[in-house]
Amino acid sequence: MIRAGIVGGTGYTGVELLRILAAHPGVEVAVVTSRTDAGLRVDALYPSLRKHIDKVFSLPDIEALAQCEVVFFATPNGTAMLMAGELLERGVKVIDLSADFRLQDAEEWSRWYGMTHASPDLIEKAVYGLPEVNREAIKEAELIACPGCYPTAVQLGFLPLIEHGLIDVRHLIADVKSGVSGAGRKAELAMLMSETGESFKAYAVSGHRHLPEIAQGLARAAGQPVQLTFVPQLVPMIRGIHATLYGQLNTDAEDIQAIYQQRYRNEAFVDVLPQGSHPDTRNVRGSNNCQLSVHRPQGGQTVVVLSVIDNLVKGASGQAVQAMNLMFGLDETLGLNTLALYP
Amino acid sequence: MIRAGIVGGTGYTGVELLRILAAHPGVEVAVVTSRTDAGLRVDALYPSLRKHIDKVFSLPDIEALAQCEVVFFATPNGTAMLMAGELLERGVKVIDLSADFRLQDAEEWSRWYGMTHASPDLIEKAVYGLPEVNREAIKEAELIACPGCYPTAVQLGFLPLIEHGLIDVRHLIADVKSGVSGAGRKAELAMLMSETGESFKAYAVSGHRHLPEIAQGLARAAGQPVQLTFVPQLVPMIRGIHATLYGQLNTDAEDIQAIYQQRYRNEAFVDVLPQGSHPDTRNVRGSNNCQLSVHRPQGGQTVVVLSVIDNLVKGASGQAVQAMNLMFGLDETLGLNTLALYP
Amino acid sequence: MIRAGIVGGTGYTGVELLRILAAHPGVEVAVVTSRTDAGLRVDALYPSLRKHIDKVFSLPDIEALAQCEVVFFATPNGTAMLMAGELLERGVKVIDLSADFRLQDAEEWSRWYGMTHASPDLIEKAVYGLPEVNREAIKEAELIACPGCYPTAVQLGFLPLIEHGLIDVRHLIADVKSGVSGAGRKAELAMLMSETGESFKAYAVSGHRHLPEIAQGLARAAGQPVQLTFVPQLVPMIRGIHATLYGQLNTDAEDIQAIYQQRYRNEAFVDVLPQGSHPDTRNVRGSNNCQLSVHRPQGGQTVVVLSVIDNLVKGASGQAVQAMNLMFGLDETLGLNTLALYP
Amino acid sequence: MIRAGIVGGTGYTGVELLRILAAHPGVEVAVVTSRTDAGLRVDALYPSLRKHIDKVFSLPDIEALAQCEVVFFATPNGTAMLMAGELLERGVKVIDLSADFRLQDAEEWSRWYGMTHASPDLIEKAVYGLPEVNREAIKEAELIACPGCYPTAVQLGFLPLIEHGLIDVRHLIADVKSGVSGAGRKAELAMLMSETGESFKAYAVSGHRHLPEIAQGLARAAGQPVQLTFVPQLVPMIRGIHATLYGQLNTDAEDIQAIYQQRYRNEAFVDVLPQGSHPDTRNVRGSNNCQLSVHRPQGGQTVVVLSVIDNLVKGASGQAVQAMNLMFGLDETLGLNTLALYP
Repeated sequence: MIRAGIVGGTGYTGVELLRILAAHPGVEVAVVTSRTDAGLRVDALYPSLRKHIDKVFSLPDIEALAQCEVVFFATPNGTAMLMAGELLERGVKVIDLSADFRLQDAEEWSRWYGMTHASPDLIEKAVYGLPEVNREAIKEAELIACPGCYPTAVQLGFLPLIEHGLIDVRHLIADVKSGVSGAGRKAELAMLMSETGESFKAYAVSGHRHLPEIAQGLARAAGQPVQLTFVPQLVPMIRGIHATLYGQLNTDAEDIQAIYQQRYRNEAFVDVLPQGSHPDTRNVRGSNNCQLSVHRPQGGQTVVVLSVIDNLVKGASGQAVQAMNLMFGLDETLGLNTLALYP
Repeated sequence: MIRAGIVGGTGYTGVELLRILAAHPGVEVAVVTSRTDAGLRVDALYPSLRKHIDKVFSLPDIEALAQCEVVFFATPNGTAMLMAGELLERGVKVIDLSADFRLQDAEEWSRWYGMTHASPDLIEKAVYGLPEVNREAIKEAELIACPGCYPTAVQLGFLPLIEHGLIDVRHLIADVKSGVSGAGRKAELAMLMSETGESFKAYAVSGHRHLPEIAQGLARAAGQPVQLTFVPQLVPMIRGIHATLYGQLNTDAEDIQAIYQQRYRNEAFVDVLPQGSHPDTRNVRGSNNCQLSVHRPQGGQTVVVLSVIDNLVKGASGQAVQAMNLMFGLDETLGLNTLALYP
Repeated sequence: MIRAGIVGGTGYTGVELLRILAAHPGVEVAVVTSRTDAGLRVDALYPSLRKHIDKVFSLPDIEALAQCEVVFFATPNGTAMLMAGELLERGVKVIDLSADFRLQDAEEWSRWYGMTHASPDLIEKAVYGLPEVNREAIKEAELIACPGCYPTAVQLGFLPLIEHGLIDVRHLIADVKSGVSGAGRKAELAMLMSETGESFKAYAVSGHRHLPEIAQGLARAAGQPVQLTFVPQLVPMIRGIHATLYGQLNTDAEDIQAIYQQRYRNEAFVDVLPQGSHPDTRNVRGSNNCQLSVHRPQGGQTVVVLSVIDNLVKGASGQAVQAMNLMFGLDETLGLNTLALYP
Repeated sequence: MIRAGIVGGTGYTGVELLRILAAHPGVEVAVVTSRTDAGLRVDALYPSLRKHIDKVFSLPDIEALAQCEVVFFATPNGTAMLMAGELLERGVKVIDLSADFRLQDAEEWSRWYGMTHASPDLIEKAVYGLPEVNREAIKEAELIACPGCYPTAVQLGFLPLIEHGLIDVRHLIADVKSGVSGAGRKAELAMLMSETGESFKAYAVSGHRHLPEIAQGLARAAGQPVQLTFVPQLVPMIRGIHATLYGQLNTDAEDIQAIYQQRYRNEAFVDVLPQGSHPDTRNVRGSNNCQLSVHRPQGGQTVVVLSVIDNLVKGASGQAVQAMNLMFGLDETLGLNTLALYP
């Protein structure tokens, strides 16, 4: 059994890690830390975990964490970069669900995240944890930067088109909708049910932190910089991301459906739907799946890709466990075969 | 008092007309028809109207309707085109909330709506009831084709850019999200709360009936054909449409915010939000308002317009009453000043 | 025009007062205060009020408020009791939507609200603002204690049975469900959409502050103390209260339906539904109505009353305006005839 | 591997059975029937099952079903009673999720369900499948009548009090709230999201089919008839039942919390929460758990029990699989340890 620690176990990605790891046959959750709830039983805060997690939140402590083989950071941005170095030195693998190691450029990171990066030297050591792109590197990694939720849905949707050079990468549009759990478990006026229920809105159209992360990933696939317009939007539901992606085809010659099926034919968690389908976020709710479909309305030059994930699973904690499985030589799908909860 | 009749009073646009007209100081609802519920008190079906509407649903009857000065059709597509002619001949003004008279081209209409148009001769008589475009014509009209809900949100959002020739009309994208009431009051599996709650999906990406209507309106504004990609999507909420519109600017020279404010400065029901705003559908819920904002992310060539309406008010019954006010020489806002219901 | 002030205009009862008063033909909103948002335009915080409220939030100031004829307190508990006295002395009528003056017994108030009452002398001056019980006293009142939302729904439901002595007042049960806006506009973890959406729960079963208020009102009607079990519950919706009330009949002789109809036959805002009906909260959403039905399952001794209101209207701001109308000799329904928003 | 068949695989209890059985290590789903969707791939109708269920819906056929060791009926009422007999004769165990065999009295069944019972002789053969009451009988059973969703939540909540004779069984009240999936996957106007979203209502107060089933179960526990008032109510959420139960204590002598903990100490799926808790339906969403708490407000004679389940799991398909495990000598919890999906 792999001994795992979770730093920041009281947020939604933390409790989702606990839900997944509690049922994972190869992992023992050894430590769950929380500054705010130290001393409290985990299942007192989260009764959904009763009978499954028999732990008490502890204060974050390097000594205790260093007894683990892997430590997940389910913390706000800016925490993992302070603690990861010491854990790595002591031989602990680190999987960071926050944004600390996602951008290759520390200065760009600082601009978007509003703080100086505390461990710029670790950035190049970090492997971007999108298995569909970086599987081999993840297997060898000591430090994983888990992709953000929006970036996962957008990259998986755009990659086949970009890798095959089929669209104009100077005119990419990602119109993406997220359930409210993406905002995390924080007491904010704007995320009250009275404020977000029965309403739909865009936000951060002028620039969202996931923009440079997506652009970085797509540029890597394209072998050149890309121009992306990214509009995040808030849906009155709890879980789910739906990316609606637009590109301008520069060819008529290709069978795009076949390209998508081919690209993901060996991927356990990316599922290309039959031609003409429209994925529903509910069909991946609670699962680690991405469901995709690709359309070319009226046979024109605009291609439309629809890509859905559960933001807390494939967009966060499930993908983190997928990376862990790879790092420890386990079956990549271990503990991740939970079916989506429909209806 | 204007004597008004409503044909098809049991759907959502019908009951919304009743809600608005019951409080309208210049209208008396004289007839409300329903084939399925004839003989039933209106407020037995809709207890929200108790003490406000003291009527019984009747079978549709030309004689009774001909006693009205105006008849609203809140019927499924294909009904108004059978009855409008006779009412018009008898001097009754007709306001059609269905799609029967929206497209100028009867053959195109037949292709999209799957039936032969029964009154192609009336099409040219019909005035497209978008007051922000057609105010003077509406004042003189005998027959109004009320715009669809998606077309209202999209046209109001794109018009200033297109009228000023600021964007490339061959590459328009409308990514539009609607609450479930847009599907109407019909017993359909797909619209059960268990099917649509807590989920988000696109539909009809290959082609939706509102596409030719939007394209027709934008082409008229552009003075040339337009190329539009239109993706309708379903939001787990009851009321509201949020259009996210993308265009490619062909100039850097203009103050777009000022153009929008100028375009709509005299419009009672179109409200350009301050620069940097993001409209929420809840802020127009139950009101006849359209709230708009316009963005140019990262100062690039892609302009993003956000446009919200209540699909049942400005997207249907409110706009119909706005047209009626114009047709009868009333204050355009009469009976339409209800504030949005927040939260 | 009555000059009205609102203290605490940023909460849900405050913005709801603004929605109602903006459309009230006899009132001018002169002052809207907010400690947290002073200096901000009201419609910048609440875009739903754009074009209807042209005011800036000011700091609460007795001088400015004293220029009003009536001041509404839409504040947290404990504020009105500090300011009401001075305003009353200066001839301003005060309508308190908080709980400060609801309980006749200052000590009991202190126990439930966890603070010493600052103006116990004003308590007896205060009139409990339930027009269906206290209409004449409200007309003469200088200080109104508006009923709580739960107490309004429960009292209107139980009163006919209790006034006629038909049920055993030692065994009353009120199982009441509220939408989340009842918790107010406060940044609380428990009220996030991720926490309250798609879930149902009871809370405060051991004792809720509205229990003594309800018991006081029912005891007054009974002429003796009552024993009430009150279970408040949270529904994943924004607006609405549904009270399900249980009593044990001590007679078979009465036509209960007729008693309810008789009791409320002259009430504009209490509507007894036909026998066998089940009221929906949506049918009163946004309106000042209470809809009621009364059942006697299987003809047994247990009577079940179903009573629905919109917690922010009849349960708060609408009822406050109803009281204001009475205090100023206006038609009781003025500005309150907005129809419910269905669907 | 146990070969299992599902008759009526297109409803919500059917697809929930598929979700559970697809992950059950001891079961192979051999046949899934559907009259309406025969010939369609199961995962075409339910994309949430892609990669997990590789089956095509077939027409119901006794020969094919007789090859199974167990057949689940996830059908509307009235189907299982027609087919169960022949399957039982051929040695197939039958687990009926519909109501056909729940009531011991065939005449009472006919009154409530509006049809003559086709197999009254099988009724006494049927074992009521509530393991917490009937575990040993279930192990020996050939035919299981799975309890309804409301009856499961109510009986588990009341049983300890009734078995210990602590409450007056002539005055039981069950105020129960259900998510909309309880109404099944049927195209009904009343279950549209536009009709049920953002609203709360009671229904069938005069008498609901689950009333005699609950009364029968409680009477068995009491050893005497009981008088129950049962009010079912509809919550705007998809999954979950919350029963709020009221009884009148006839003693002060007992530690009720201890009685509940003792009663359920060996039950894997019934979890008595710590004193003072309020269960949330979300904490059992997707799991087979019932979470309970018991309160005695103000120390009075009224006891309040709060009991939550997921109506599709412990209230239907999960409980059916729990019974199957018992019938086949498997670990009772096999395949049922999925954690609840929070948030």
